[in-house]
Amino acid sequence: MRLSQFHLRTTKETPSDAELISHRLMLRTGMIRKLASGLYTWSPLGLRVLRKVEAVVREEMNRAGAVELLMPTIQPRDLWEETGRWQKFGGQLLKLKDRKEQEFCYAPTAEEVITDFARQELVSYKQLPVNFYQVQTKFRDEIRPRFGVMRAREFLMKDAYSFHLSDEDLEREYRNMHAAYSRIFTRLGLQFRAVLADSGAIGGDASQEFHVLADSGEDAIAFSTASDYAANVEAAQAVEPAPRAAASQTMKKVATPVQKTCEDVAALLDIPLAHTVKSIAVVGNEGFVLVLVRGDHALNEIKLRKVSGLAEHRMASEAEIEEHLGCVPGFLGPLQPRRPIRVIADREVAAMADFVVGANEAGFHLTGVNWGRDLPEPDEVADIRNVVAGDKARDGGEIRLARGIEVGHIFQLGRKYAQAMDATVLDENGKSATLAMGCYGIGVSRIVAAAIEQNHDDNGIVWPLPMAPWQVAVCVINPKNDASVNDAAVALLEQLQQAGWDAVLDDRGLRPGAMFADIELLGIPHRVVVSERGLAAGTYEYRSRSGSESENLDHAALMARLQS
Amino acid sequence: MRLSQFHLRTTKETPSDAELISHRLMLRTGMIRKLASGLYTWSPLGLRVLRKVEAVVREEMNRAGAVELLMPTIQPRDLWEETGRWQKFGGQLLKLKDRKEQEFCYAPTAEEVITDFARQELVSYKQLPVNFYQVQTKFRDEIRPRFGVMRAREFLMKDAYSFHLSDEDLEREYRNMHAAYSRIFTRLGLQFRAVLADSGAIGGDASQEFHVLADSGEDAIAFSTASDYAANVEAAQAVEPAPRAAASQTMKKVATPVQKTCEDVAALLDIPLAHTVKSIAVVGNEGFVLVLVRGDHALNEIKLRKVSGLAEHRMASEAEIEEHLGCVPGFLGPLQPRRPIRVIADREVAAMADFVVGANEAGFHLTGVNWGRDLPEPDEVADIRNVVAGDKARDGGEIRLARGIEVGHIFQLGRKYAQAMDATVLDENGKSATLAMGCYGIGVSRIVAAAIEQNHDDNGIVWPLPMAPWQVAVCVINPKNDASVNDAAVALLEQLQQAGWDAVLDDRGLRPGAMFADIELLGIPHRVVVSERGLAAGTYEYRSRSGSESENLDHAALMARLQS
Repeated sequence: MRLSQFHLRTTKETPSDAELISHRLMLRTGMIRKLASGLYTWSPLGLRVLRKVEAVVREEMNRAGAVELLMPTIQPRDLWEETGRWQKFGGQLLKLKDRKEQEFCYAPTAEEVITDFARQELVSYKQLPVNFYQVQTKFRDEIRPRFGVMRAREFLMKDAYSFHLSDEDLEREYRNMHAAYSRIFTRLGLQFRAVLADSGAIGGDASQEFHVLADSGEDAIAFSTASDYAANVEAAQAVEPAPRAAASQTMKKVATPVQKTCEDVAALLDIPLAHTVKSIAVVGNEGFVLVLVRGDHALNEIKLRKVSGLAEHRMASEAEIEEHLGCVPGFLGPLQPRRPIRVIADREVAAMADFVVGANEAGFHLTGVNWGRDLPEPDEVADIRNVVAGDKARDGGEIRLARGIEVGHIFQLGRKYAQAMDATVLDENGKSATLAMGCYGIGVSRIVAAAIEQNHDDNGIVWPLPMAPWQVAVCVINPKNDASVNDAAVALLEQLQQAGWDAVLDDRGLRPGAMFADIELLGIPHRVVVSERGLAAGTYEYRSRSGSESENLDHAALMARLQS
Repeated sequence: MRLSQFHLRTTKETPSDAELISHRLMLRTGMIRKLASGLYTWSPLGLRVLRKVEAVVREEMNRAGAVELLMPTIQPRDLWEETGRWQKFGGQLLKLKDRKEQEFCYAPTAEEVITDFARQELVSYKQLPVNFYQVQTKFRDEIRPRFGVMRAREFLMKDAYSFHLSDEDLEREYRNMHAAYSRIFTRLGLQFRAVLADSGAIGGDASQEFHVLADSGEDAIAFSTASDYAANVEAAQAVEPAPRAAASQTMKKVATPVQKTCEDVAALLDIPLAHTVKSIAVVGNEGFVLVLVRGDHALNEIKLRKVSGLAEHRMASEAEIEEHLGCVPGFLGPLQPRRPIRVIADREVAAMADFVVGANEAGFHLTGVNWGRDLPEPDEVADIRNVVAGDKARDGGEIRLARGIEVGHIFQLGRKYAQAMDATVLDENGKSATLAMGCYGIGVSRIVAAAIEQNHDDNGIVWPLPMAPWQVAVCVINPKNDASVNDAAVALLEQLQQAGWDAVLDDRGLRPGAMFADIELLGIPHRVVVSERGLAAGTYEYRSRSGSESENLDHAALMARLQS
């Protein structure tokens, strides 16, 4: 491949609405061009990267025993009615009518269509298990498409659907897909985590998300230093705290005239924030509740909703707080309320001794408070906080936090869709059995953006080798002025290609500065410069995209350097 | 690949609405499954074939210097308004609205989108020429989708668009694409013709269609035995006839009491049909005209419309015929009309001597008629007939007729789209120049059906080697009962794969009859049977899908046979 014959057009400016670095860099390199809101054309450069990702996904899906098929992008309404999702899916479902006024949608996913295929194709347990997948365009009519291909409306997705007789076999395939996904992201050279997650709108029994780690990621992830354990911060369980210490202080009321937050109180008293307790007044469907979390912890609303009576709850109003606690916010606490209250303590709070809480009196807090002695044990103890960095992990490791971009998702759907659509096979005993089902998605186009979020610097993209549009750029100085330099560069290109490198020749004739800036912007992992001076010395100038030093290497050393 | 781990499901029955053999065979083999009218899922088997076609198309497009990109399937209305095609394209354009009531269409083609891309990306003549292509799903909302994937609504198409500064460069690329298309269809192992055609709705200066030849094809094609010349029968020009012979008969009026057609008159008089002349009365925008073609020829309406005054014309009514010729239909002729008439003769008629025409008198014809002697020379002589098999071709060969299925189309669009959308670059002199444009389409999914129409027999598909889902099927008899036979089959499979063959093992454990019937139905070019008896004799049973004989071959002979 020669860049002079490849349509490449980099730009310096980026549109003001491009907030994410991946969006900006994909526009600056020319990988994508916007057609309309959430619709992008993949340029020749961008498509090279997209196809490399697609190829790795396909190879690993095939290796895992899945078989590829291809379903239409346009799906009939009647199948979506069978599962009730024609209504339930919401505004992201792009609905349309054909010339005969028949209703269809542009596929955002394909559970209905594959289940329809399966109920026709699968008649016997002997055909099971089977895992069908496709790499096909999808459409989700996002309210606010943004971040380029990170949240585009039309995008490329690998979606797989497996069918099983038993739950155990579904779980086996789920683990098989987990392993395949791990191989895919490892092969692509990405830092990632498989994250425990709620299954969300698709429903089902078990699911994990695969996240590419990047500071700009939308999701906060907790992971352990000691194992593969990772979870959305919202879903991550805190471990059982150490047993409660014995009381060593007597309870005292201290003046905290303007100190309404735990941070301010801890500062005033010169004690660690972890010795304070935050009191949060909420109203659930059984009335007023005081929720306690440690001063340095954050309440986790999702966990709190799992506490009985709090599936639906709201923050209490000042009037309700006054009625139950006889106090204004900022000085709340579980002691001496005006009316009896239900107290729910996070497990960490229940394990505290000598702690600090509001005194239910404006301008005062209590110190040296101890459960049992100064107030009754909490009515309920539960895990209702977000985990934080430094928490112990269940596996003995330590919790770290990171931000991630969801690029894959695996689900055990169970029999939800098969039941709704009556997808059955005959089992070993000749009896009709409803199929168990798994589904497994990868956002192929999104991986490209996520990889850039994870791998870039001030000069542009820093592609992992397997995703780079080309692995090696051979840059030739003055190709038009010096035929021998050009010939040497072409010869080197061919030698690299014969050695299996996906190499490109930059023979556009740009000035060295502009050429090198482009090659850095494009993120090509290896750059080799062929110049008259180098040829005279018998060397090429080599530079790694991720390194900072150039080296002058002879042919053998260059080849060895590339391999290393 | 092992068939036991591949989802294969063949059936005997076919739905009554499957008229075409390719449609029936694609359903029987399970290559496709209908999702809704004109929408098909490609099963794992079908997708293997589709991908092989796609790969050949991609390789040859790349070899020809085109660069691949990927445009969205959903296109905004405003671009289609710029060319006026939002209204003009007609009912095949699937229009839709997003959640914000913005209007879009599902791409049936991409001239507007690529021209929009080009006007942003291409700024200088230095970036030219360039040929962008994509392999992308398209949608055409056919009124009557039928014939399976031959005329589906959603289908896979390769569409390419080239941009040029000059018409000469566009013509060069047009020839380049002609050569690429010829390589594609040759590599796929298909009998095809590049056919001269009117450019139809897309418009432009020059175009050719690529047709796969098949008896079931919708289009009639005329081609020469002496060159690549081929044209739609409607577009094929007839060659200049031999000079007119001298008159040798005197004109006579003969009674033809019930003989109203040339066939009947020729039979009554016992003369060749080619000695008679058919008189057809039409009314154009300058009035009544009598059109003459030889009795054995068919009038070509498209050619007739090119005669001055006949761009719009209709058949004359009986009253108009009576008024101008004084006669009833069936006995019309150019002699002694009641009022002066304009006579337009096909070139073949103008070159006739001693011919037979109606006498303009009910129940009579004239024989031995000669131009100049018995009636004036025709007012106009033109090529207004369909060519027929046996005609001389311009290149000295003979015209043959065939039926074809259009699978590709190349166009010189000129500046139609670039002008409408103001797509310009700066030329060598720094002046703004409107881009010249070519477009080049291939119906990737349609090729699969067309290939089956051309290559099948009573037992199923007979794939050309490059399109077959697998090239070699290794059939193992009793794989479960006899481990040594199974091992030998697996060993052979691996040897074949190492030798570069795309081979599959049929280890499903079917009875030999059912297994062989499936492999024939699927159209696998080479079948090798591994059996206990064969192994004892040191041989495999080989059979070619297109041959009728089985051969027992040892390992070396088998490998040699496959290569031959």
